[in-house]
Amino acid sequence: MHINEMLADAERTGQPSFSFEYFPPKTAQGVQNLYDRMERMYDFGPKFIDITWGAGGRIAELTCEMVVQAQTYFGLETCMHLTCTDMGEDKVNDALQKAYKAGCTNILALRGDPPREKEKWVATDGGFQYARDLVQHIRKKYGNHFDIGVAGYPEGCDDNKDEEQLLDHLKEKVDMGATFIVTQMFYDVENFVRWVRKVRERGITIPIVPGIMPIATYASFMRRAHHMKCNIPEYFMAALEPVKNDDAAVREVGKALVADMCRKILAAGIVHLHFYTMNLAQATRMVLEELDWMPTTTRPRKHTLPWKQSLGLRRREEDVRPIFWRNRGKSYVMRTQEWDEFPNGRWGDSRSPAFGELDAYGIGLTGTNESNRKKWGEPKSIKDVAHLFVRYLEQEIDSLPWSESPITSEAASIKQDLIDLNRRGLLTINSQPAVNGVKSTHPVHGWGPPNGYVYQKSYLELLVSPELFEKILPRIQNHPDLSYYAVTKSGSLISNVSNEGPNAVTWGVFPGKEIVQPTIVESISFLAWKDEAFRLGLDWAHCHDANTPSRVLIDKMMSDWYLINIVNNNFHEPRTIFQLFNGLVVEGLDDPAVVESATAPEPQINGVHKETTA
Amino acid sequence: MHINEMLADAERTGQPSFSFEYFPPKTAQGVQNLYDRMERMYDFGPKFIDITWGAGGRIAELTCEMVVQAQTYFGLETCMHLTCTDMGEDKVNDALQKAYKAGCTNILALRGDPPREKEKWVATDGGFQYARDLVQHIRKKYGNHFDIGVAGYPEGCDDNKDEEQLLDHLKEKVDMGATFIVTQMFYDVENFVRWVRKVRERGITIPIVPGIMPIATYASFMRRAHHMKCNIPEYFMAALEPVKNDDAAVREVGKALVADMCRKILAAGIVHLHFYTMNLAQATRMVLEELDWMPTTTRPRKHTLPWKQSLGLRRREEDVRPIFWRNRGKSYVMRTQEWDEFPNGRWGDSRSPAFGELDAYGIGLTGTNESNRKKWGEPKSIKDVAHLFVRYLEQEIDSLPWSESPITSEAASIKQDLIDLNRRGLLTINSQPAVNGVKSTHPVHGWGPPNGYVYQKSYLELLVSPELFEKILPRIQNHPDLSYYAVTKSGSLISNVSNEGPNAVTWGVFPGKEIVQPTIVESISFLAWKDEAFRLGLDWAHCHDANTPSRVLIDKMMSDWYLINIVNNNFHEPRTIFQLFNGLVVEGLDDPAVVESATAPEPQINGVHKETTA
Repeated sequence: MHINEMLADAERTGQPSFSFEYFPPKTAQGVQNLYDRMERMYDFGPKFIDITWGAGGRIAELTCEMVVQAQTYFGLETCMHLTCTDMGEDKVNDALQKAYKAGCTNILALRGDPPREKEKWVATDGGFQYARDLVQHIRKKYGNHFDIGVAGYPEGCDDNKDEEQLLDHLKEKVDMGATFIVTQMFYDVENFVRWVRKVRERGITIPIVPGIMPIATYASFMRRAHHMKCNIPEYFMAALEPVKNDDAAVREVGKALVADMCRKILAAGIVHLHFYTMNLAQATRMVLEELDWMPTTTRPRKHTLPWKQSLGLRRREEDVRPIFWRNRGKSYVMRTQEWDEFPNGRWGDSRSPAFGELDAYGIGLTGTNESNRKKWGEPKSIKDVAHLFVRYLEQEIDSLPWSESPITSEAASIKQDLIDLNRRGLLTINSQPAVNGVKSTHPVHGWGPPNGYVYQKSYLELLVSPELFEKILPRIQNHPDLSYYAVTKSGSLISNVSNEGPNAVTWGVFPGKEIVQPTIVESISFLAWKDEAFRLGLDWAHCHDANTPSRVLIDKMMSDWYLINIVNNNFHEPRTIFQLFNGLVVEGLDDPAVVESATAPEPQINGVHKETTA
Repeated sequence: MHINEMLADAERTGQPSFSFEYFPPKTAQGVQNLYDRMERMYDFGPKFIDITWGAGGRIAELTCEMVVQAQTYFGLETCMHLTCTDMGEDKVNDALQKAYKAGCTNILALRGDPPREKEKWVATDGGFQYARDLVQHIRKKYGNHFDIGVAGYPEGCDDNKDEEQLLDHLKEKVDMGATFIVTQMFYDVENFVRWVRKVRERGITIPIVPGIMPIATYASFMRRAHHMKCNIPEYFMAALEPVKNDDAAVREVGKALVADMCRKILAAGIVHLHFYTMNLAQATRMVLEELDWMPTTTRPRKHTLPWKQSLGLRRREEDVRPIFWRNRGKSYVMRTQEWDEFPNGRWGDSRSPAFGELDAYGIGLTGTNESNRKKWGEPKSIKDVAHLFVRYLEQEIDSLPWSESPITSEAASIKQDLIDLNRRGLLTINSQPAVNGVKSTHPVHGWGPPNGYVYQKSYLELLVSPELFEKILPRIQNHPDLSYYAVTKSGSLISNVSNEGPNAVTWGVFPGKEIVQPTIVESISFLAWKDEAFRLGLDWAHCHDANTPSRVLIDKMMSDWYLINIVNNNFHEPRTIFQLFNGLVVEGLDDPAVVESATAPEPQINGVHKETTA
């Protein structure tokens, strides 16, 4: 979506909106931390985010990677910055193509700072000298695909304080095809308002987005204001100076000052604020809270669908997914990224027959062997593994090899049932409770537009030992309400489902719409997921050294046990799916794993577990 | 669907099935009566029907027309008979092509009787001599598109009693590609069973369908048995002879005899019975009742969808329709018959933009002017028209210009509300009550497979006077639950719906399936229906002579009034849609229509009302 459309929305509805800016961190761990933070800050409700351009080789790559990550995995509408600094035309084209492929439709075109070693900015050979050249190039090459933003300088640029000349440049950039303006940081609202008026007097009518820098510490506030040569109003200093040695007090006072400034900007007719987050959450969150713009738990961020949509190329209309990747959304997006079309309205018509291979980076288990052993321990019996699953359900650990994130609040209503199953060695790796029509604004189960009703069929996916499977099969095979698929790592599919079509397990009824059915269960995708599920288990086994009890135990479970999914089609009946297992306990729950001393040489598995490099 | 698949279904489920045979009647009125009867007998639940071949020009045309009618409008799987009699290859090809286009996939290939004037059967020049030639020709030309049946003669053919020779012929027909056998009528079950054994001994393994002739009157029974040279067992005569002058007693005794015979046939391992109905319902129905095979009111005939599916070419997967043609199904099928694809799963993707023109035969109002005046009277005030609508709702009349059939039991729960609206001059031409999830086997609202739940949003479609429309508009425009479309004959669309997509107003949730949403409301099809609705009103006006009060009244309503449809999206709330009209009464309810004596010349309307010729 173009930023201009979002701004027009805010204009039309009178509902002010905001966006966040991030920059590429210097270390791999920093990147991982930032991804986690971006994902959390997604829930603050930004309309879009900016990723600044990392001038220079590796860090420029990282900008592109972060755009892909935000756009396709987090479903955050992203604006990629692009500078002329050090960039030939080829490099610019390469970056634009990457943004295009990521589904990104917004570029902020900048001249950029001169490289550190040089005093003054000069164009690379065959590169662009001014931002306006870059704007012109992007328009020529991509037509209206990208919305193109440019920088505005209410207080002058650091190497040029001639306002009239800067306004001339701004006009040139607009004439070349820029469609919105983002300003440098400022604290002087009156000057900003004056400057906006001057911009308008030049006949520039495109939206102006003010850049807001929240105040984290006194030192950083002063350093940045100084670096940007930005005027600090007297009353800012008067309020901050007395508390400058008390970080908490600075944040409190700063929050009030910045929020007050935001209110003045809004009062001047601006509808959207752009926050320079400096890759941190707290200061920005405090300003949003002060403005009463933070979603509260009783007023959750509205989701269009029960899972996070990808904004990757061609994926915007995607509205049906198999339930199996519920706890591994990123893997689903990666494994389907080569699809030509994504299902819209129904699964059957437009799915591609092929799921991507498991060997793509990021699909296997992440984390180092050591960190995974630390997280999940060294289980020596099925009971130990079961205990791990129970701890996950009790929220004592926040991931499992099959679940990237902590258990969601949705599971609360079936938590005790799930714990009960796992205690008996029935290892649940995915589930959802039955929902028989609650309002679409329901705090736990709700999704989609208001005034609708949402529904779910209860769902369970488990790892089940072969001898338990034999006992479960007769109970489930001819049950009128239950449908199941079961499979071992190397075996063929067993099921009581005769028709080939998908089973909708989550759906919603909304005013004036067709029924939306975003989650389904069906056989082909289950088989693709099966490979991934057993692979994750094997990856976990291989976090343990060969011939250790944990390695032998988990390896054996992966080679012998069944992966089984069960849907209770009667969504009026939330208990049946658990009653199915009444009285069943896995055999040998306490038996220690047997490590044979004189075993054959360690078998090689395909695709050795990759350690994360992020 | 191929008859063979249906027979295999019966075989697999152990659920015996049956089919009906009809022949083309000699008069137009006879055809109309038969259509009505076929439609009623649809509810008996035949797996398919046969239409016999009418040898000779006009009557052969009629066979093809009846196949189209049964297949596309009644949704009855049809087997077309085709004979060699009097038929050159061109005529055969023409008939096959017509069957193909009608979506028919079953042909019974027969030699046929010799033309009446000739004593012995001879092939037409360039025609086929034997049924086997016809079988071979159909296979060559259409591959496996058609299932091909052939006749079997357990008691010999009327011009050939040599059983071995007939079995030779049968084997030849099978070798040429026949896939099922339908026998001539018989009453001697033991001989039939013996004959089946002989057929099997010849290595013929295709299914054998016995032809059953129910007993209507003693005279017809004797005549047909004689004509077919068919053996009547002693016990038949012994039972029938004593009551032969009492028609009612003959039917009672005959019913028991034939039902007994059917049971014996089933006991011999046959799973499907083919009834020669002789175009009459009663005798066949009595046998079905005796066998306890008739659907009762508490065990209604199962419908896959809430409307009758067409089995026309390319239409088998059609599963979404606009609600507007609910009471005029045939018109919908005709107006969409040129579509390349029919919506399946959702309306939006595959609908054609164009609805057929109104001028096609059969789309306007049927019946002569005189008969329509007799049915619907000569209303002289809005109150008279309103009274007519009330009488329809009270089931005192069984059609209205906008409704071909009597009001359905579904309306019972809102009947009083509808009557109340119509009494006040709010003329309802279509409606459905809200249904918040009843079992799919529900006797009134149920449809689709068992163990499902079905839902409806309440729906009203009305003709509303302009001054009432002004009063309704503010009540409905911003109502959070109600969406509406309104339009006059020549006006543009007024609506509070902003998105272009369809609104699902009927849907069902079934085990192991995506959500089925067979009925929708949306703008484009409403505009197509609007033309038809106003045309039907004008056609009705033109049943009355120019310058009569009825003509003036209805003409004026059609040119001034609004056609409006309303959906209550909150399907938990059945009453809101009626409360909307609280306190509203049309102005001038009792005013007599004013006929001006010196009016301008009668305006010509396009497409003058066509009288039915059927």
